[in-house]
This record gives sequence, structure tokens and C-alpha cells, in this order.
Amino acid sequence: MKSEFEFIETVRRRYNLSKIGDDCAVLPKDSKTDLVITADLLVEDVDFRLDWTTPEFLGHKALTVSLSDVAAMGAKPVWAMLSIGISVKIWKTDFIEKFYDGYMRLAKKFQVEIVGGDISKTSDKIVIDSIVAGETKKGKAVLRSGAKVGDLIFLTGELGGAAAGLRLLEKGERYKNSKYKNLLLRQLKPNPQTEIGQILGAKNLATSMIDLSDGLTADLNHICRESKIGAKLFSDKIPDQFDLENFQSVFNLSEMINFLLYSGEDFELLFTVNPKKKFQVENALKNHKFSLIGEVTANIEIIELIHKNRTEILQPKGFRHF
Amino acid sequence: MKSEFEFIETVRRRYNLSKIGDDCAVLPKDSKTDLVITADLLVEDVDFRLDWTTPEFLGHKALTVSLSDVAAMGAKPVWAMLSIGISVKIWKTDFIEKFYDGYMRLAKKFQVEIVGGDISKTSDKIVIDSIVAGETKKGKAVLRSGAKVGDLIFLTGELGGAAAGLRLLEKGERYKNSKYKNLLLRQLKPNPQTEIGQILGAKNLATSMIDLSDGLTADLNHICRESKIGAKLFSDKIPDQFDLENFQSVFNLSEMINFLLYSGEDFELLFTVNPKKKFQVENALKNHKFSLIGEVTANIEIIELIHKNRTEILQPKGFRHF
Repeated sequence: MKSEFEFIETVRRRYNLSKIGDDCAVLPKDSKTDLVITADLLVEDVDFRLDWTTPEFLGHKALTVSLSDVAAMGAKPVWAMLSIGISVKIWKTDFIEKFYDGYMRLAKKFQVEIVGGDISKTSDKIVIDSIVAGETKKGKAVLRSGAKVGDLIFLTGELGGAAAGLRLLEKGERYKNSKYKNLLLRQLKPNPQTEIGQILGAKNLATSMIDLSDGLTADLNHICRESKIGAKLFSDKIPDQFDLENFQSVFNLSEMINFLLYSGEDFELLFTVNPKKKFQVENALKNHKFSLIGEVTANIEIIELIHKNRTEILQPKGFRHF
Repeated sequence: MKSEFEFIETVRRRYNLSKIGDDCAVLPKDSKTDLVITADLLVEDVDFRLDWTTPEFLGHKALTVSLSDVAAMGAKPVWAMLSIGISVKIWKTDFIEKFYDGYMRLAKKFQVEIVGGDISKTSDKIVIDSIVAGETKKGKAVLRSGAKVGDLIFLTGELGGAAAGLRLLEKGERYKNSKYKNLLLRQLKPNPQTEIGQILGAKNLATSMIDLSDGLTADLNHICRESKIGAKLFSDKIPDQFDLENFQSVFNLSEMINFLLYSGEDFELLFTVNPKKKFQVENALKNHKFSLIGEVTANIEIIELIHKNRTEILQPKGFRHF
């Protein structure tokens, strides 16, 4: 069965759609500014479950997924639209007010203005389309296609928390009485790396960037394909959020590796940097958590993992709908 | 139960969202241009049924609903995004290719560039979010709020066809072998009034405008509320598409009146004009079908229908989800 990525690639070629293929489309705004824009669909029982989350968390997450795409372009988020379809049964509850509370609180934090959207009825499940637009200096949006051989690969924050949280939810853990609230929040109420994205964009520090929505190898592979490069990662440099030792009783080792390398929704930023700008990046991000995890190679679309002097080739598997 | 209109009004006030409340949001683009943007959600078994339509018709309609909103602002459509969620079962068919065919054919007609969107899985029903952006000269977007007492009320095309088509579909009529293809197409494959919208916008001819998505009285009422005016309509001037006499065997009189006054999805444009510009409008639209159907009054939010020297007050009922 074709994946959604293959289908999008087909459509992109068939209709010659040059704006498709990055975290956001880049559109000219005025002589000094470009507009970047993204849309993200969230579907009940595919992307979230009502018995696992709260309306406020869901509103927050709906905005985060799109803010994260805008951050990955090095852009400042400016305005948003929200389309939501819900059943009559849910409409009669306070779901929609609480959902907007969570959504609007995050919008306010980043001064994103809500300018429109749509509300519709569905026969059963909730569906949300989250649209966010941002701005960059003209021609300065950070694309997936700019990585060069020899560039350093950086990552913000820590990985695996969102997937670990999801696994706990699947096992029956619930937020209210959990001792793993930290991990559950990474899945239920993730935060976008809006500030870091803007810093890297404004200071022109990243040669390419992507947000981690599908998983480290899958998203790194998007950069490899668009930039026609390969990558080498150092396993001991990849920061995990769930602290391998403490979680050995909860997850087995293969689960934990899966969370780190192949699982999505951490919404951290993965970016490449010309080695000459290493110190500039370290200085610009000194108030943020980030790691140097690898480097760009000439082995097109090959991702190597260096683990205790052994090299393993990673398959770019990650989240896909189809 | 609150309607979606009441809820949107509450959100608009609570969060002070000044861009909400017209067919599109109006956003500054550059020193000479404004951007207008709209999002419209279409949900399977609420807004369409797969056994009534074809994937190509549905793709066409998904773009029409948003192009129509852009036309209602007097704007030229420029780019679009499409988010679509479908089940694995539908993904395995040729639905998505055919849907894009219908969508892209209409996009090409109006030179609208597809710049992004999202594809997601749903557990069952199809859901579509159609986003279109257009451009107007700075400050020249036609709003719902500009109608003045004494203005003339114009309407493009003919009304009632989409609702009559829907009623036929409900009665079991199907497109393939139908002798009412005309009416069914009005429901299944409606066309946006993109050219007329642009003419009225570019020549600054309309004081207010809206597209007929919810129904004549409901949409006219939106103009009345935003412009703080009332309206008087002349029943013999309202052009019906289904030719009352020919359809007496198919529909009863009350159904036909309902189609005309209270039913949506015709995607015609309703607009008000300063009487001094009447001849300019008639000249500018001489190659298009349009009618002068009434005038703006000072009776705030009262819609009168003049029918054979009798005056009836119309209730602004029309389509609502909740």
C-alpha cells in the first residue's frame, strides 16, 4: 500500500507543486518578509483519545503541532486558524470551551492571533485542522534542503518522552494519579520549540531544520532526501528523556531504543549547522537545552549510528498513517 | 442548545478576536495588498455522502466552498491548502487520486496554487478542510458590515437549485441516470462566483457582500446584523432555478419556497450597492446573470418579503449544524 509520503510526492510531481515538501509552505509576503504556513489534521482515536487526555491538553497540543512546523522554518508565528468538527453529543458538553481555553492560552503565550477557521458537526469522532502562519526575513526560511556534507547535526531537548508517555497510556496509566506525569505530559501537552526556531532563523545559524513529529530517523531521512546527503549519529550523544536506568522496570531495552530512534511527537528541532558556526550556535542557545548528536556525510540517504565503535545503518522507519 | 454562530460570537468577544465574523479574515500583506483567508470543513455523512457523489465532484466542491468565501470578499484567489483525513479502506481505492483530479481542475481554472495541507488517517468517515487565500487592494475587501440604508440588494444567478438537488438525492434520485442532472450538479458540483466577486471588488461597487452558503434569509441576516440594517425583498424578483411550474409534480409549494428562502449551498453572491452605482454594476456585470431583488431598510435585523402587495416578516432561519 502506498504511504502518504509516496502519494504526496506523486501529487507534487504530477501537478508541479513547488511549495510542497517542507514543514511549511513559503510564500512571498512583502519586499522584506516571507509568510510560512502549515496545516495539521488531528483525528480522534488516531491522533488522540478522549479518555487519555483533557480538552485543555488537546487544545494546547492542536496548536503545538503547527507551531512546531513554523519553528522548524526558523519563523516567528503570527496568526492561526482552527477548524474543528465535533458530534452533537460532545457539543452539548463543556468540551469546546475547555478546548479553546487550552488552545488560546498557548496562542497568547506566543502572541499568535486567531483569525478564523470553521466549526462543523461530525457524526461521531472529533477532527481538528490546525493552521498556523509565521514570518521570516525574505529568503531566510530554513528548509530541509540546505544541509551540506560536514555540517554538524544538533537536536533540542530530549527524545523519547512522547513515545514513552504514549506507551504508558496504552498500558492503562492515566494522568490524574500517575507518578509519570512528566512523560504523560510530553505526549498529551507537548511544547513547541518556538523560541529556539526563531533564534536560529533570525541569526541565520541553521543550514536545514525539521521538527521531530515522525521520529528521529524518519525526520532526519527527510532532511537527507531533500538535501541529498547522509548522516552519522553518535548513540551516546542522543539525549533521552526517560532515563534508561530508572525505567528498566517499566520498559524493556528494545522499547526504549524504539522510543529514541523511531518514535514521533517529541516536537524537538533537528537542525544542521556549518561547523564554522558551532560556537555561534552554542552561544545563541546558551539558555536552552540542546545537543550535538552527529554530522552530515556524503552517503546519500544513509543514516549511520555509531554505538561503542560499531556502526549500524538505521532504517528510516517512523510514524506513517498508511 | 447553543448554535455554532452563538459559540463563535462568544469566543470572538471573550478573546477579542477582531478578524472573526466575515467570510474571510482580512490580513495585511504589503503596502498595496491585503490577504483574505478562509477555512471550510466538509464531513462525510454531514456535508456529503459517498453514494450520492463522485470523488471528482467532491474535490471540485471542496474547493468551491472556499473559493466562494474569497469571492464574497471581492478578492482574487491566489493559493490554497487542503487537509484530508480518510480511512484505510478508502485509501486503498482510487478515491484520493480522483478527488485531487476534481480539486486540481478547478484550481487550475482560477490559477490557484496548491501550497500545502495534510493527509491523515481516520477510523471511518472522510473529513476535508479546504483553505483558500486571496488578495484585494489594501482596505478594499468587501465586508458584511458596509451596507447602508437605501442601498440596493443584488443577487447573482438563481437560487434553490442546490437544495432541490439535495431533496432529489434524499428521495433516491442518482446523478448517473437522472433527468434532473442540472439540479443535482448544483448540489454536487457547485461553481464559485469568482469572476463576479473580483469585478465587484476591483471596481469598488459593493458596499457589503456574502456568499449564499446557509440560505438567503440566514445569509442576508448576517449582513443585517453586521451592518445594523434591515432589508426588504421583492418575492417576484428572486430568481428560482427550478422553474416553479415545471416542478409542481416533483416538489410541493412549501418545499419550493423553502428551497428559495431558507436553503443553502447555492454559492451565489448577495451584495448591496449604493443606488448611485446601479448603472455601473449593471454595466460591469453585463455578461453575467444577476438580479436586483430588494433594498436596505432602517429596520435593524428585520427582513421583509413583499409578495403581491402583502408584507411578510421572514425569520432568518437557515442551515445550522447545532
